[in-house]
Amino acid sequence: MRTMKLSKVFTLLEPGPVVLVTTHDGRRSNVMTISWTMVLDFTPRFAITTGAWNYSYRALRNTRECVIAIPTVDMLDTVVGVGTCSGSDTDKFAKFGLTPTPGKVVKAPLIQECLANIECRVVEIIRRYDIVVLDAVVAHRASSPRETRTLHAVGDGTFIVDGRRLNRRKQMAGKIPAGI
Amino acid sequence: MRTMKLSKVFTLLEPGPVVLVTTHDGRRSNVMTISWTMVLDFTPRFAITTGAWNYSYRALRNTRECVIAIPTVDMLDTVVGVGTCSGSDTDKFAKFGLTPTPGKVVKAPLIQECLANIECRVVEIIRRYDIVVLDAVVAHRASSPRETRTLHAVGDGTFIVDGRRLNRRKQMAGKIPAGI
Repeated sequence: MRTMKLSKVFTLLEPGPVVLVTTHDGRRSNVMTISWTMVLDFTPRFAITTGAWNYSYRALRNTRECVIAIPTVDMLDTVVGVGTCSGSDTDKFAKFGLTPTPGKVVKAPLIQECLANIECRVVEIIRRYDIVVLDAVVAHRASSPRETRTLHAVGDGTFIVDGRRLNRRKQMAGKIPAGI
Repeated sequence: MRTMKLSKVFTLLEPGPVVLVTTHDGRRSNVMTISWTMVLDFTPRFAITTGAWNYSYRALRNTRECVIAIPTVDMLDTVVGVGTCSGSDTDKFAKFGLTPTPGKVVKAPLIQECLANIECRVVEIIRRYDIVVLDAVVAHRASSPRETRTLHAVGDGTFIVDGRRLNRRKQMAGKIPAGI
């Protein structure tokens, strides 16, 4: 993995991929599948929706840190598997053959197999809506990924795979932040 | 367009498509392109990120209503065009040939050309993060759409088109809300 410019990190989440979110509670690492995410700013600042119904939530709330990892289409069954069991009784890294890798700033692990990993700090938890506001502090991208297509959860048990990419950079020149 | 069950509306936004958001300020209708959206609940409740930098924001804040419309890939140049001009000096419905259609509850118009239209009421604006919390009140889906593939804004001027759909309903049975 190579470090990625923080100014470009919002482009990982803006398209709306399903993500894996890792935490470390001081003893063990855990990972959950999240598809409710939103970019809040280019800084980059993000929001995710989660709460006490996810076992990871306690570690996220207590440590105020996590990693958002972006899986690719070849990891679909891992994404589904991680999202349908609980860290309360399962070592998900072992069960799904995910390789935890130390980050640079936070104690939550990166996932070696993912396309990108975003180390994040919790800015605030808006309890009324279960919105967790996160600031990215360091981001990493796979150096030579074999697969780059991400997955979009529909919410009904189906997933849409990235298709082709259309370019409108010229038409949008005035709206794209400098250097992106 | 036919009315859609509210319980299924979250499946329109969960995959992360770029959307068009319409407002009506009492005199005129306007529309903006938004790609920063998030599902907050199955109820269905959503968040979008917007603020005073968008001309539509004032109408959204004052009327506390909007429509989230889901465009398809054939509308890419409309999505880009709507996102790169301002309602302050442009009638975007006329300029981009969009057909405003009365909704059932809110005064903001539906967009006839879109795959789906979600009539929403503003629950709260979280000013600190420019998060607008919305409740869907009625939703409509095109009866026999010729195109169903949506677009995902990357944020760098490119857009990813929906590719194929993979089914993991069986594996996720315990996680899918009843009736979805």
